[in-house]
Amino acid sequence: MNYLNLSKEQLKELYEKYLAVYKSVQNEGLSLDLSRGKPTAEQLDLSTPMLGKSRSVSDCISEGGVDCRNYGVPYGLPEMRAFFSELTGIDAENIVVGGNSSLNLMYDSVARAMLYGVYGSPRPWCREEKIKFLCPSPGYDRHFAICESLGIEMIPVAMKEDGPDMDAVEAIVGADASVKGIWCVPKYANPTGITYSDEVVRRFATMKTAAPDFRIFWDNAYLVHDVYEADSLLNIFDVAREVGTEDRIFFFTSTSKITFPGAGVAMMAMSKNNLSVVLPVWCVQTIGHDKLNQLRHLEFLPNAAAVGELMKKHGAFLRRRFDIVLDTLEKELGGTGIAEWTKPNGGYFVSLDVLPGTAKRVFALCKDAGVTLTNVGATFPYGKDPEDKNIRIAPSYPTESELARAMDVLTLAVRLAALESLLK
Amino acid sequence: MNYLNLSKEQLKELYEKYLAVYKSVQNEGLSLDLSRGKPTAEQLDLSTPMLGKSRSVSDCISEGGVDCRNYGVPYGLPEMRAFFSELTGIDAENIVVGGNSSLNLMYDSVARAMLYGVYGSPRPWCREEKIKFLCPSPGYDRHFAICESLGIEMIPVAMKEDGPDMDAVEAIVGADASVKGIWCVPKYANPTGITYSDEVVRRFATMKTAAPDFRIFWDNAYLVHDVYEADSLLNIFDVAREVGTEDRIFFFTSTSKITFPGAGVAMMAMSKNNLSVVLPVWCVQTIGHDKLNQLRHLEFLPNAAAVGELMKKHGAFLRRRFDIVLDTLEKELGGTGIAEWTKPNGGYFVSLDVLPGTAKRVFALCKDAGVTLTNVGATFPYGKDPEDKNIRIAPSYPTESELARAMDVLTLAVRLAALESLLK
Repeated sequence: MNYLNLSKEQLKELYEKYLAVYKSVQNEGLSLDLSRGKPTAEQLDLSTPMLGKSRSVSDCISEGGVDCRNYGVPYGLPEMRAFFSELTGIDAENIVVGGNSSLNLMYDSVARAMLYGVYGSPRPWCREEKIKFLCPSPGYDRHFAICESLGIEMIPVAMKEDGPDMDAVEAIVGADASVKGIWCVPKYANPTGITYSDEVVRRFATMKTAAPDFRIFWDNAYLVHDVYEADSLLNIFDVAREVGTEDRIFFFTSTSKITFPGAGVAMMAMSKNNLSVVLPVWCVQTIGHDKLNQLRHLEFLPNAAAVGELMKKHGAFLRRRFDIVLDTLEKELGGTGIAEWTKPNGGYFVSLDVLPGTAKRVFALCKDAGVTLTNVGATFPYGKDPEDKNIRIAPSYPTESELARAMDVLTLAVRLAALESLLK
Repeated sequence: MNYLNLSKEQLKELYEKYLAVYKSVQNEGLSLDLSRGKPTAEQLDLSTPMLGKSRSVSDCISEGGVDCRNYGVPYGLPEMRAFFSELTGIDAENIVVGGNSSLNLMYDSVARAMLYGVYGSPRPWCREEKIKFLCPSPGYDRHFAICESLGIEMIPVAMKEDGPDMDAVEAIVGADASVKGIWCVPKYANPTGITYSDEVVRRFATMKTAAPDFRIFWDNAYLVHDVYEADSLLNIFDVAREVGTEDRIFFFTSTSKITFPGAGVAMMAMSKNNLSVVLPVWCVQTIGHDKLNQLRHLEFLPNAAAVGELMKKHGAFLRRRFDIVLDTLEKELGGTGIAEWTKPNGGYFVSLDVLPGTAKRVFALCKDAGVTLTNVGATFPYGKDPEDKNIRIAPSYPTESELARAMDVLTLAVRLAALESLLK
């Protein structure tokens, strides 16, 4: 039943019916949360055996003979860099290993650019009159928060089925030298879940940039996080190397959603030219990140094959939750004409577009019924969704029954808000 | 025998004698290192039991019910903040817990001041024409490296027996508004090992500053690191609170030299006003530091008393090494008039002043005999010791027999270099 074809009377009838349901839901006193892409406890249990090893003195020495308890090795254990090399297809010598947070590496990379510039910068970015970043939207709120915190102007660019709108990206980046960067989650994008097509990756590597020091912040957070059939993503460094644009890429990933969000290992990768600017600062900032945690990871996940086995188990947990989300959306909103959503093959999110102008109302209705959604607008720069329609669904953290209940409430709220709007 | 009272002939005779010894030492092919304040392996063994616990799922939940494997709790577990509160005498609500490196917190604090300013700044420090820091010297090379990296001009201030030369500090800080900070290691200072007197701490808290946003970077790295009798340090916050200057203090410490240099827990403490500026940026930078490592620490070191017991064991290791250093210095250089050194009650260093103009030569002589010293000059801003006389001795890392041999070579080199200089 397509709501857009109904008469006022029919709409009103539907509205009264759903309002009654909503009121009874409110009386249940629910407390459910679909707001953040946090793994559920059972997923964390998968990696908890890595903490279970009784570690003696000799267990603190790396294969290469480093006492991981002491100072040093600021770029990470060679074995850990090799591990990430196998996982990403990037040479180990281009990889540096950080602490537990790739977000921290991203923030630091932008802050470093502000204070020192990047390789090829005429001057530190903070000495420029204005710095702008492209923000494919909907996107990741914490990327946008970095720009907002550092006073970087954000320009939204539309997200399409195969990645950002590259015509728009190329036009802006090619014309405006104050545009110095773009945020990308190229695989299972946050929140739409789509993976950039080979053509999009190629256009990123080959596009002309007005700024000599333009940087792509390539946050490959979900590189092995398949839920259904695996998407494949082109290695942007491979394309960039052919055309001599390697310097434009800052690559990030971590084991946050492989092992532990709170105690994983993060890395970044970049060209030798970029390393020549970054490493001297890196070594002023720290004497070394936690190598014992690197050891724990290497023992539990010696290679990419072991990661693959673990990710299959994660995938099984997530698949059941994605099924609940997608089945409920289809059952409750399919054919209504008031909602569209993505069907990702992996990652942590499903992106739901409701009737324009009703997302905030959906959020409020959910909240008043005890269901917390990601703040509406959070997926856009400055927290402002121009069409007030995007809702990010993070299905991983609740239990399956909680999730099912939350999706019932969400889809009910979507219908109610749409009916209110159509009845205006 | 005071070298300064000897005749040319006597000096020449001595020189020939020591040169012969030196040549035979060179033939030994030594490879010894006195350069960095790293704990020795046996010290790290003391805390290795904390890694030996087999950790099940329920062991990942903090006392307060936080699943430490997952995202969140960016300021650190409340239990960890309480731990540091007991250790430092600072209210837990003024404490935030970071990753494994207090140096990283210091770098980030200066970088943050550059990008945003601090509480009370008229503008971000990077928008000022010039920023200067006072650097009590000799001091910690990694503090100076932060200033150098960020283009902050360093003004050396002399270190005395009871702390920095406060007449000079007050005069400069009171007159020059571009002086925005000072580096302090107030207890068992790196490298002189002295502890600031109560009067010095009071003067820091009460002095007039021309800059409205002056900050003391109070790096209390060695707060419980007694080797002989414990020095006592006044709590600067207690004094500052009385006179309303709490905002000028950024306090840092870590468990690096309590548990593991590579995998400890770092913290910083500051006033509520400072927190109001720092925390919003802190939360953009990370979703949270490693809470599992905080848990490990809390289990192994539940309170300050447990820390005290552990530090007694560290002290025993260090005491034997400090004895070797101080005994050798006294035996080989006592009464020669060509060297002075400090006799710290704790920390990781002994500071040796040789005949002015000969420190670089001592370094070279040691190097050619297989003994690595901290780079001469490293303890001064820009790596330049104006009198070329200071040598930092880090006795912790070598074995006792290595240390004894290295001290023989060092004191021999000090005599040779002095004789060369006096014979000129």
